[in-house]
Amino acid sequence: MSGQNPGCILVIFGATGDLARRKLYPALYSLHQRNLLPANFAVVGLARRVKTPEAFREELFRDLQKYARFPVTEEKTWPDFARRFFYLPLDLHDRAGFSGLQKLLSALDERFAAAGNRLFYLAVAPDNFAPAADNLAAAGLAPNHPPAWQRLLIEKPFGRDLASAKDINRRIRKVFPEEHIYRIDHYLGKEMIQNIAVIRFANAFFEPLWNRSYVHNMQITVSETLGVEERGAYYEKAGALGDMFQNHLLQLLTLLAMEPPGSLRSAAVRAEKIKVLRTLQPLIPESVHENVVFGQYGRGIINGVRVAGYREEKGVSPFSNTETFLAAKVHIANLRWAGVPFYLRTGKRLAVKGTEIFIQFRSLPEVLYFKEYGSLAPNLLVIRVDPLEGIYLQLNVKKPGAKDLIIPITLDFCQNCALDASSPEAYERLLLDALKGDATLFTSWEEVALAWEFVEPIAATREKNGAQFPNYAAGTWGPAEARELLRRDGLRWWPVCGKRKDDLPACWQSAQTAVTQATPRHFLYREKWGESPLRKYTTFRWLFTRA
Amino acid sequence: MSGQNPGCILVIFGATGDLARRKLYPALYSLHQRNLLPANFAVVGLARRVKTPEAFREELFRDLQKYARFPVTEEKTWPDFARRFFYLPLDLHDRAGFSGLQKLLSALDERFAAAGNRLFYLAVAPDNFAPAADNLAAAGLAPNHPPAWQRLLIEKPFGRDLASAKDINRRIRKVFPEEHIYRIDHYLGKEMIQNIAVIRFANAFFEPLWNRSYVHNMQITVSETLGVEERGAYYEKAGALGDMFQNHLLQLLTLLAMEPPGSLRSAAVRAEKIKVLRTLQPLIPESVHENVVFGQYGRGIINGVRVAGYREEKGVSPFSNTETFLAAKVHIANLRWAGVPFYLRTGKRLAVKGTEIFIQFRSLPEVLYFKEYGSLAPNLLVIRVDPLEGIYLQLNVKKPGAKDLIIPITLDFCQNCALDASSPEAYERLLLDALKGDATLFTSWEEVALAWEFVEPIAATREKNGAQFPNYAAGTWGPAEARELLRRDGLRWWPVCGKRKDDLPACWQSAQTAVTQATPRHFLYREKWGESPLRKYTTFRWLFTRA
Repeated sequence: MSGQNPGCILVIFGATGDLARRKLYPALYSLHQRNLLPANFAVVGLARRVKTPEAFREELFRDLQKYARFPVTEEKTWPDFARRFFYLPLDLHDRAGFSGLQKLLSALDERFAAAGNRLFYLAVAPDNFAPAADNLAAAGLAPNHPPAWQRLLIEKPFGRDLASAKDINRRIRKVFPEEHIYRIDHYLGKEMIQNIAVIRFANAFFEPLWNRSYVHNMQITVSETLGVEERGAYYEKAGALGDMFQNHLLQLLTLLAMEPPGSLRSAAVRAEKIKVLRTLQPLIPESVHENVVFGQYGRGIINGVRVAGYREEKGVSPFSNTETFLAAKVHIANLRWAGVPFYLRTGKRLAVKGTEIFIQFRSLPEVLYFKEYGSLAPNLLVIRVDPLEGIYLQLNVKKPGAKDLIIPITLDFCQNCALDASSPEAYERLLLDALKGDATLFTSWEEVALAWEFVEPIAATREKNGAQFPNYAAGTWGPAEARELLRRDGLRWWPVCGKRKDDLPACWQSAQTAVTQATPRHFLYREKWGESPLRKYTTFRWLFTRA
Repeated sequence: MSGQNPGCILVIFGATGDLARRKLYPALYSLHQRNLLPANFAVVGLARRVKTPEAFREELFRDLQKYARFPVTEEKTWPDFARRFFYLPLDLHDRAGFSGLQKLLSALDERFAAAGNRLFYLAVAPDNFAPAADNLAAAGLAPNHPPAWQRLLIEKPFGRDLASAKDINRRIRKVFPEEHIYRIDHYLGKEMIQNIAVIRFANAFFEPLWNRSYVHNMQITVSETLGVEERGAYYEKAGALGDMFQNHLLQLLTLLAMEPPGSLRSAAVRAEKIKVLRTLQPLIPESVHENVVFGQYGRGIINGVRVAGYREEKGVSPFSNTETFLAAKVHIANLRWAGVPFYLRTGKRLAVKGTEIFIQFRSLPEVLYFKEYGSLAPNLLVIRVDPLEGIYLQLNVKKPGAKDLIIPITLDFCQNCALDASSPEAYERLLLDALKGDATLFTSWEEVALAWEFVEPIAATREKNGAQFPNYAAGTWGPAEARELLRRDGLRWWPVCGKRKDDLPACWQSAQTAVTQATPRHFLYREKWGESPLRKYTTFRWLFTRA
């Protein structure tokens, strides 16, 4: 283990839960294998169940064999990893029990020379955030005496709405100052999301084009093929709005749209993200109907298997009005983006699992090739976040051998398509950053609050949507209204390829071949030029014709 | 055969020569196989040697088996192709002999319903252009009575200097009007050269960046591994200047640098190319020394085989001062390109065979990543012309898994890398265009004259270079001064990959892998910002450090 970072004890509430077992322990093991953890590092698992540290470690070993990115062998690195793991049965509502935690931590502080530094990870439901914080404070476990630090790591959802978020925040802020609260939005830890800023600010190609003069629209899709699985009760309250839109989708939007920060430091980047959220054009109740599409899945077929509708899922009301799909068209009212629509969509039980970002550039005016050829495709920059990681550009070239045909091609870079490529999991990066005290990839309170504020008009109209539910079949791309949302602007959702690494590289190669060999007549793109850019987007016409 | 084009008889002077046998007949056969030739089409081969049409067809059959892009089988398309080929022994200086040609053409006109349309292809040395034209006129074979047309196709070199070019031009223009003279620069028929205009004018990505604000420099390399082979006597007079630079390289430059034309029509495009040649910053005698590098190969090793030096080649003087390598830095003095250096180089017996164009973009100013990381690679657009055809972009992304490393990657599109991909040869396109009367890909007299005018100061200094010859070993990248030409500007020649289709895709994949996996510290790129763009290029610093 590396000795470059100060020591620390990581305390995990919810140590026997899914998040800890599937994500946190495997991430810690990867960091250990990559020699990135501090030498003076230990983990204390907390959960209600009574078990010995030995039993905890045995379970840990089995979990890692299932979920870890690197192979786990008893002989090699396992002993040094396992000796750092401890377990304490503790109900986080039981204030008296925290004195036991206090004693254990003191002992481990000494044993591991952890210098009193503690990272409290609340891998539990948000209702428990405030009680846990209160009890930590009562037990004197968050004294906030420098140089030792105590940080709080919490998981989304940060509340269910602005009011509940404020309430939680008020209570945890009594114990932990804002700069010691690390709100995890694990999307920010994904390789390609970290890459957005590099793509934008380390390439002379894109920076000059990254504004309303050159970008026609952006599309962000976060689609899942899974249903709500075991989390029906949670999802009933969160919906797609609270589960995905308010956090992941709006966070991606801020990274794509923010002004170049003054520096790469956390505070500078956060300030720019906050500015984006502040300049989001608010949805007034009337405009929600026009710009937001709600959906809920019915029965359908995913990968050849019949699956139940949402209202049939465990923990879900048979009359549920909760949306499992959300699409929205939003605008950012600043000089850079005025008039450029951002289309966001997310949903469960969709056709393909994939997180992809499409930046569609304004085509050139109707002269030269755009005059002579009726059907040139627009230029695209596509950032593939998940499961494929990479970027590609769609450009126009002359079809080889043909005199009169221009076709779109893709210039592709896939960073996890190689057979032996395996990118670090988001949690590896996020845990490491929290240990180091780098908050850049975490969400500040102001961002959380502004995001809740923006989605409030959407939340307010949710109850009215139930009548039409379910309105899409599992395994499809959501309700027809989501297509209509773009079609009425003369646009379409660019196809999300998705595909797991296992099927690779058939999917994107076939997509590339298809686009390379097709005639370009599958859509017709026209734009009237000579109008002021501000009004351009309203007069934009894009008509579809079938190949 | 297609019946869409009017009939025509193609008359080839030099019908038993290398160009006809290796390029023209295979191109005609491909066009025939692709069903692109007019139905009423015939070919008359002319050469001094006496042989029967049958013998000519037999040789044709053998040549096609060697050089054709499509397989030749006796049973299928061969009979319909062969029946169109005729042969007449004719010395083009023998005026009396042209009456025999006149009779044959009249007979074939009738037999093939060719309507008096004739394409005279002078596949002979330029000394013969004028005599051939004179004798055609004397025999009444170029009456220029519409609707029938008689066109003249000639091959480079168009003269040896401005004076000789003017002389040839004056004489052929007495017989053929300018619009019926098709000067072949076969580079313009190459797929990727045709693609330059599409890349520039059918992609919103590039058009806004295609100027001095965003382009740092362009590099055009046309490199050969062959020596002068059997053409020593010709090459002694032409040199790299007349053989490649005055025509191919300056033509590529005009296509890359020209303003967007008002339309895609031939006249509009030619007008823009002429404007580039007119705005080339003239080389005064003193600046030739500074901006032009001459080279001549000595002995060396190519692909593991020892080869002779230029002065040892057949037909070459042992004291020859002819350059086999030329590199030049030129500027275009217009609003779009002022201050942007264009580096051109060509040579024989170089390390790799390849024609590639590098457009290097100005890096972003020294803020954010360009401040935090000392060594970011500039963005590149690379157009691969030959032997690989395609384009790629070099961009910067975050190295997967690393927090603090930004690496250059390439987004690659290779259009002839697939095993079954075979692009049409340049001559297919050019012959077809000449048949159709489309002169866009041919060189106008004004371009030829301006190009000669520009290179005259270079030609004037050639005799002085002999003292240092030979100054590069065969199989290397030319004389050290060529590297110095860029190094003193803080730059380097971007590596030309080359590679034949047969070795594919190892070459560019390995290149891509290498660049993808390397740390970015192999060069250090710094640019001071805040200075006026006009002066920027002079203060540009780019220092090399070894990885």
